[in-house]
Parts: sequence; C-alpha cells; structure tokens
Amino acid sequence: MPKRVTLKEVAVHAGVSYQTVSKVLNKQIQISKPAEDRIWESARRLGYRPNQIARSLRSQQSKLIGYSWEPNSPDQVNPILDQFLHSMVRAAEGAGYHILAFPHRPGDEWLDSYREVIDTNRVDGIVISSIEFNDPRIVLLQEKNFPFVAFGRSNPGWDFPYVDVDGGAGMRLVVEYLLEKGHKRIFALAWPEDSRVGQNRMEGYLSALSQMGIEPQNDWMARGEGNYRFGMETTARWLEQPQEQRPTAIVAFNDIMAIGAMQAAQGRGLQVGKDLAITGFDDAPMVQFLSPPLTSVRQPIARIGQRVISILLGIMNNESSEETHVLIQPKLIIRESS
Amino acid sequence: MPKRVTLKEVAVHAGVSYQTVSKVLNKQIQISKPAEDRIWESARRLGYRPNQIARSLRSQQSKLIGYSWEPNSPDQVNPILDQFLHSMVRAAEGAGYHILAFPHRPGDEWLDSYREVIDTNRVDGIVISSIEFNDPRIVLLQEKNFPFVAFGRSNPGWDFPYVDVDGGAGMRLVVEYLLEKGHKRIFALAWPEDSRVGQNRMEGYLSALSQMGIEPQNDWMARGEGNYRFGMETTARWLEQPQEQRPTAIVAFNDIMAIGAMQAAQGRGLQVGKDLAITGFDDAPMVQFLSPPLTSVRQPIARIGQRVISILLGIMNNESSEETHVLIQPKLIIRESS
Repeated sequence: MPKRVTLKEVAVHAGVSYQTVSKVLNKQIQISKPAEDRIWESARRLGYRPNQIARSLRSQQSKLIGYSWEPNSPDQVNPILDQFLHSMVRAAEGAGYHILAFPHRPGDEWLDSYREVIDTNRVDGIVISSIEFNDPRIVLLQEKNFPFVAFGRSNPGWDFPYVDVDGGAGMRLVVEYLLEKGHKRIFALAWPEDSRVGQNRMEGYLSALSQMGIEPQNDWMARGEGNYRFGMETTARWLEQPQEQRPTAIVAFNDIMAIGAMQAAQGRGLQVGKDLAITGFDDAPMVQFLSPPLTSVRQPIARIGQRVISILLGIMNNESSEETHVLIQPKLIIRESS
Repeated sequence: MPKRVTLKEVAVHAGVSYQTVSKVLNKQIQISKPAEDRIWESARRLGYRPNQIARSLRSQQSKLIGYSWEPNSPDQVNPILDQFLHSMVRAAEGAGYHILAFPHRPGDEWLDSYREVIDTNRVDGIVISSIEFNDPRIVLLQEKNFPFVAFGRSNPGWDFPYVDVDGGAGMRLVVEYLLEKGHKRIFALAWPEDSRVGQNRMEGYLSALSQMGIEPQNDWMARGEGNYRFGMETTARWLEQPQEQRPTAIVAFNDIMAIGAMQAAQGRGLQVGKDLAITGFDDAPMVQFLSPPLTSVRQPIARIGQRVISILLGIMNNESSEETHVLIQPKLIIRESS
C-alpha cells in the first residue's frame, strides 16, 4: 500500500508550521488567501487525504446517514430500492456524507436496530421509508431528538419532516382518466384499512368518483394483502357476476395486484384493454413489458431521494430554511391495458 | 436526547476503577470471571453503549464495508440488489460491521470513488460486483493491497477472492432440458463477446449442444445489448425464415431479452411454450407473472451475499482458513414458456 501522506509533509512542502496546515485544512482558522492557496496546493500535489476516522473524532460526527428497509421476498420486486438508495448516495456525497445500511429485523426488534446506530454514534442522521400509521420509529426518533427525514407521512396530527408522493392525486388521475373514457363501474383492488398509503390512495379513488356524482357501492372495493393472488382471485370473483354488475375497469393500488387481475381476465378469455380496463400503481420495472403493457402511476423516486437528503442535511446543520413537508406529484403512464 | 452513559458511571456502579472498566470492555485485559461479569452486567444495566467514533480511533478501523453498484435505468429491474445488499448487511452485522454505500460514477471516474473510500480510511474492506474482463477495480484493489471480495470472476489467470454463480452450468441445465424435450434447433440470444458473464454462459450453451453431437450454426447465435428491443427484433428476424430454419427453442442470456422474444413470437400469433419454447436467465421478480410464466435460471443471491461477507471478514482478520474461490450452482426454474 502506498505510504499515507502526513500533515507534516504537507507543512514542509508548503513551508509553514504543522499547526497552521492542520488548522487551515480543517477550516479552523483563516489566514491570508495566498498562504491558504499554497497549503491547499501542497496538499493536492502530495496527494494528502484526510483520515476520516481522525476527522470524526474531532468533529464527533460520523458523516454517515443511516437507512434500513424491509427486504422483499425473492419473488417480489422492490420497485424503488435501486433508484432511491442511489439518489441518496449521490446527494449525500456532495456534502461529504455516505449512506450506511443497517439491518431490518422482524417486528419490534427493528426498533432496536435504530436505537443501536443512534446510541453508538454510528450515524449523524437517519432516513426512514415505508411509513405506517403510529409508526414507532417516528416516536423513537423524536424522543431521542435525533435528525431524521421520512419518505412518507404518518398520522395526520404528527409533525415531522417528510417527503411524500401524493398518492391520492395519483389515484384521482387514474380514475378521472377512466371516467373520461366512459367507464361507469370502476372497481378498486385496495389495501387494508390500517395502511397509511392505502388510505391515501383510497381518498383519491373516492373523491374522483364523487366529483362525477358516482357513489361507489361497497362491493366495488376489495381490501387485501396487495399480492398477485389477491388480485387474481378477487377479479375472478367479480367477473363471475352478471354482466350488468361486473366492473368495466379495475384500478389496483399496486402493480402486482393489477397483474393478478390481468391474469384472471385473460383466463376468462377477456381482452384486457378492450373488454376490461386494468391499471396499476408504482410503474414497477417490467410492467411495460406485460401483454398488454400496464397503465400505471409513476413516482419520481430519484427526485424524492435527493429531497430527503437535502432536507436532512439542513436539519443536521441547523439550517431552517428548507421546506420540511414536501408533497410530490406522481405521473400517469397510459399504456394498452386501459 | 437522553444523556449518554459514561465509562465512569459504569465503573462506579461496578465498584472498580475507570481503567479496569475501559480495558475489560475493550477486551484489552483479562481479569477474574466474576469481576468481568460484574462489569458487563453494570454496563448492560446502565445502558452503556460504546462510542463507535472513539472505538474507531483506537482500532483505526471504521468497521465499515464499502459497496458501490451501477444503478439500472428506471425501466429496468436490478434483479439482485435488494437481496444481495440485505444479505450482506445481515452477515456483516454479526461481526460488528455495517455496509457503506458509495456512489457509482460513469466511466473511469468510478475508480476514483474506490480510491476515495480507501485513501480516507472510510472502509476496512470492499465488495465489488458486475465484474468484467480486465476489471480495473481488481487491479486497483490489488495494487493497494486492500481487502476485497468479488461477486464474479474476471480474467482466467487472475487470482483474487470471489464468489460466483456457475453460469455455464446454469445454461447447460437449460439446454439439456430443452434437448430432452426433443428440441433440435435451439437458438441463443447472447451477450457481446467481451462480456465475462456472457462468455461463461455461452460455454454452457455450446458444451451442452456438442455433448449431444449438435454443431450450432453461426446464425443460431445473436449477440447484443441484453435489452428488450434486441430480444424482440432478433426473434422477429429469426421467425421470418422458412419453417425448417426457424428455432424451435430460444434461450436468452437474461430475462429481459426473453421477454422481448416472447413479444415477437406472440406478435406473429405463436403460442409461447407450445409453438416455440423460450427461456430466460436470472429469474427476475415478476417473470413468474408473465403470460405464459417464464422458465428461467435462479441464482441463490442471499447465500452469495453471506459468503462474500464471511470471506471478506476472514481476509480482514488475517484468517486464511476460509475458501476464497467459491462457485455456486444455480437452479433451473421450469415454467410454461418452455
């Protein structure tokens, strides 16, 4: 391994004292511009690199931002992880930070993972995602007064910094589009009532319908696990009803339920997009390659990752200028399934 | 924020000196078992947590393992990131390490990212993936004599620690299965000649055919970008040929080319799985939901992540017992597309 260049060597090269070099490179004093330039030039020429461990001790900052996520089962796709993580990594880098990944643990033990990285000074701030109602991570982070930003909202009354996609607006886009195309019976493959994101999307579904004076009947909505099987079985049941009660369109609260719905429709010989419209949500990679390609709602994940980090940096540096409640509009991607 | 418990408080609680507590908790001395137990019990009761920053200074170890990956474009799925990262995070945790994500940069600048985390003492070891021939990251890491493990092999003569999937064996499984089903003309949607992984899979394809005395003709193989469009256009061209020259089966070197091939076949009114067999590679999430579901080859990603970390920990701790060249067998997942 090539020898590490020391501050002393930089000092000799620049013709100043060790103390001066140290204080200038760590931005602890200001000296004349030419002298400062000479020191930085010497550091650059010799290839001096600060030791992050020593730096962290001085500043008592790890320069790390923690993130933990619940891994998907191998047969499900996480439509955001790659983009979300990478956009955070990029945004953090500009400010000298890196992203530290710490483990998800099942159930309440997940909280211990958060406690651990906080209590051991492992990270200076935390990003959380997949937020639910009464999310205990938010309670913990606020109790500890620890810098964090959430990708997602929680209880209406809770005040904490977040960036979120306006899922209600996304669902309104879908339903309004289907109404314009003349659909009358628009059914919903929804999430359980206690799902925060699910409730948000449900509000969009209901408000778009009621705006047109349509009162959705109870059996237009099914709430379930959000997986392929639920989408398929529910749709199969709906399609067994008499023609005049069947859906003309099905909006699914995620892509995977929509794929199940497509399968059920095709299993009955229906042409999706012609005999029955089906839409998804998330615009997961690959849904454009289904036959027919799936209409879905796209969230600007890379922009969300950047905003989350820039807000967090602001909080960690006690800058109060940045907005801390950001709602981002999703986009409807129309394809042949509708 | 609750006050941090100090070593001094632990010492008072355990009734011993500060120095003793410090040395015991940092495993620098051995004392009588009951005294040691008492100290650990006091630390636990008071909720003492070591400060990772102070620890790192003493040990000059960051207890971080670096990983950087090239992000996929938003419309492509990275079939391994979620599982691979999370399995590494879990495996590292057991040994007190975390995973640090650092940025991908385009072209040669990527190497600078690696130099930076090494030269600033940011990480103690590195994991690399998506290895190519003449991979400059391997040259750099070996020059710097820096601990690393690769997910993937490179040039035949290069000796470095890796875990890899035996892609040749995976492709042999596919081709032997198709030969058993009576297929005679098995075409390949392959990768460019300079792709390390592509060459590996090609060897499997060729060896399985030649074992049965079949000499693949030149126009049975097409090498391209590995995307949807290449799979679709190539297959469309193949299917325009006279019946007796057309493929009876197409093996794609990844799933997305297989999806393109399915689209081309269905566009000509063929029933995939009956009129033409199509197979993929990677078993990406969602390919089970295509119609028909896609036959593919699955890599045991979680096991690979664990092995990569355990080998790296061995290297960082100068333990030479662990195998450092590990080939893992993939698994053929048969579905209706074949």
